[in-house]
Amino acid sequence: MALIVQKYGGTSVGNPERIKNVARRIARFQAQGHQVVVVVSAMSGETNKLIALAKEVQANPDPRELDMIMSTGEQVTIGLLAMALKDIGCAAKSYTGGQVKVLTDNTHTKARILSIDEANLRRDLDAGQVIVVAGFQGVDEEGNITTLGRGGSDTSGVALAAALKADECQIYTDVDGVYTTDPRVVPEARKLDTITFEEMLEMASLGSKVLQIRSVEFAGKYKVKLRVLSSFQDEGEGTLITVEEDKKMEQPIISGIAFNRDEAKLTVLGVPDTPGIAYQILGAIADANIDVDMIIQNVGHDGTTDFSFTVNRGDFAKAQAILETVKTTMGAREVTGDSKICKVSAVGVGMRSHPGVASKMFKALADEGINIKMISTSEIKISVVLDEKYLELAVRVLHRAFELDQ
Amino acid sequence: MALIVQKYGGTSVGNPERIKNVARRIARFQAQGHQVVVVVSAMSGETNKLIALAKEVQANPDPRELDMIMSTGEQVTIGLLAMALKDIGCAAKSYTGGQVKVLTDNTHTKARILSIDEANLRRDLDAGQVIVVAGFQGVDEEGNITTLGRGGSDTSGVALAAALKADECQIYTDVDGVYTTDPRVVPEARKLDTITFEEMLEMASLGSKVLQIRSVEFAGKYKVKLRVLSSFQDEGEGTLITVEEDKKMEQPIISGIAFNRDEAKLTVLGVPDTPGIAYQILGAIADANIDVDMIIQNVGHDGTTDFSFTVNRGDFAKAQAILETVKTTMGAREVTGDSKICKVSAVGVGMRSHPGVASKMFKALADEGINIKMISTSEIKISVVLDEKYLELAVRVLHRAFELDQ
Repeated sequence: MALIVQKYGGTSVGNPERIKNVARRIARFQAQGHQVVVVVSAMSGETNKLIALAKEVQANPDPRELDMIMSTGEQVTIGLLAMALKDIGCAAKSYTGGQVKVLTDNTHTKARILSIDEANLRRDLDAGQVIVVAGFQGVDEEGNITTLGRGGSDTSGVALAAALKADECQIYTDVDGVYTTDPRVVPEARKLDTITFEEMLEMASLGSKVLQIRSVEFAGKYKVKLRVLSSFQDEGEGTLITVEEDKKMEQPIISGIAFNRDEAKLTVLGVPDTPGIAYQILGAIADANIDVDMIIQNVGHDGTTDFSFTVNRGDFAKAQAILETVKTTMGAREVTGDSKICKVSAVGVGMRSHPGVASKMFKALADEGINIKMISTSEIKISVVLDEKYLELAVRVLHRAFELDQ
Repeated sequence: MALIVQKYGGTSVGNPERIKNVARRIARFQAQGHQVVVVVSAMSGETNKLIALAKEVQANPDPRELDMIMSTGEQVTIGLLAMALKDIGCAAKSYTGGQVKVLTDNTHTKARILSIDEANLRRDLDAGQVIVVAGFQGVDEEGNITTLGRGGSDTSGVALAAALKADECQIYTDVDGVYTTDPRVVPEARKLDTITFEEMLEMASLGSKVLQIRSVEFAGKYKVKLRVLSSFQDEGEGTLITVEEDKKMEQPIISGIAFNRDEAKLTVLGVPDTPGIAYQILGAIADANIDVDMIIQNVGHDGTTDFSFTVNRGDFAKAQAILETVKTTMGAREVTGDSKICKVSAVGVGMRSHPGVASKMFKALADEGINIKMISTSEIKISVVLDEKYLELAVRVLHRAFELDQ
């Protein structure tokens, strides 16, 4: 008998029929002798509807009251799912975040979980009940309702699995696992049986939007066995996200090719090469609440250097305007930018022990005449910025070069 | 400075624009130096939507889970109203029933309030905040969310006023007070400045659906000063519901004419006149969950008697079928019924000290050739059952006969 935490996203519980399907899946697990704790999101579209309603009343909604409103989305789902379970003879009980109690700090709309009281859940589990918990929400020390930010239900699931020392946390979604790359770009993309937390973090942050990054970090930290599965298929083992590297003899060097077409790059040319320039440039950008992804500064020459970084494409114009001011202040030569770029990355823990991955990657791209605009590397990832038009070609070339289709 | 509890129903907070109007009204009260606690219902239509959704998942929804779902309706309203208040610079804080804590028994979907913890509310009121409380809901001792049944928000408002020893509980609705009768039937109907709790109870139970009966009982018991007002008008004192009778010299004998067209009557003829017949007949009706309103048994003759009662028109066929069985068991002669009836009542505490009210009523009806089918009286009410077609005529005749238009 295992204790399993299952998390179902908004699409999986998007209407009464789907909720009934999820109930049948849960009942099967319980019939196998497992204890099951289920974490659910709001029905797809509901959270956005509630936010829109709030904005009709207050253009910039008060965070405490917005949490009060948004948290009702998950509360409806847990009631419906508990009903669906009872309707097929499966003892079940719903819990709001506050009822559990999922204690968070008081940062409304993006609260962090501090602790989870699992005593009541364990009592109900031992009494044979399926526990249905509202994801995305908690309460602060004063009992105010808080929410965890977009995708927070994944984090709720992992945190509950950690608190209950569950044998596995299963994240049900609309894909059946993590792939070597997006199958819409490369039809030969393969589902991975396992992937490490580190690789998953790189894949997730690079645009493979299967799991919320925070939940992966959380799972890694608390050693929660995390599995991504499809809620629309009855078969399949999904992808297991593991703490340890795969022990197989023939370990793949690269696990997947991630990509992102939502970025733009900016460069300040001819910056006087003195201490503090990175802070002067990026401080102004951060003050405007613009997130920066890749940052590259090359060795200087003639007392000046060039400084480049990428931002979300939606922030491009705003960042460019800020840099024009910064340029004048710093006495830099010129600001250039390009919003028609994409980022392609090879990710894999295997590259730690395999030299030559970077050169293999660059050669594969060169063979197709694809020019690289920027390069950035981490221990388990090599990212290149390319002209946007090369995205699909580059992903296919790299997928094949690293033999991911085999 | 007074402490006022205001309750706004679903129509009054039916959309963002109306919620903003309510916020402006509350802010005006606060600006006058009053402390204000606001109790709100779900936006009109929302509770029915949630119930329909629940029924799509479970035909006969589990009561605990239905409460979990239904309570979100009010939770959305409190968040929105608190936002609207803050948006116009009025400090406000929303509270769910559980956050207050409104402790109830565990009879889900029709729970009774046991106690209200007013300490936190008082602290926030003293800090100058408007308190916005979700009506209709509470929590039981184990922290399960409960609801108080249809119209329970009125009861929430009165219970909060009692717990806080508020100076007044104002019930805002879509009418501007309690009228001598329905103005759609008698255009000369007048708004009453005051009405006693007893009269209000009779008016409410007879179909003048301004206030939920339970809330009036509650207000009477705890001596809460209750006032009915319109949320769509800025002027007007509404109708004050008082514990004591009006001390004016010229006290009206009758305060209002109530009516109900949703009833049907049933008669068992020739029942053997032995002890226990009322229980035998009505026990079977109660077992089928059919509510009985008027009950009439006249003196018997020849060892038999006739037994009549009225039920909701929707239960007519069901009740008739039950009586056919009862007739055989009891050896009664015949079952007759009529679903095309109406009930018209004259209500007033003045009739306690004024003889001749009944005869005046019967004469007024007789003068118009209206035949009376059944008569039932209480200390402050005389009800007659008439052919349905006479309803409007009878109400107008009685309104004039008792000079209610003056």
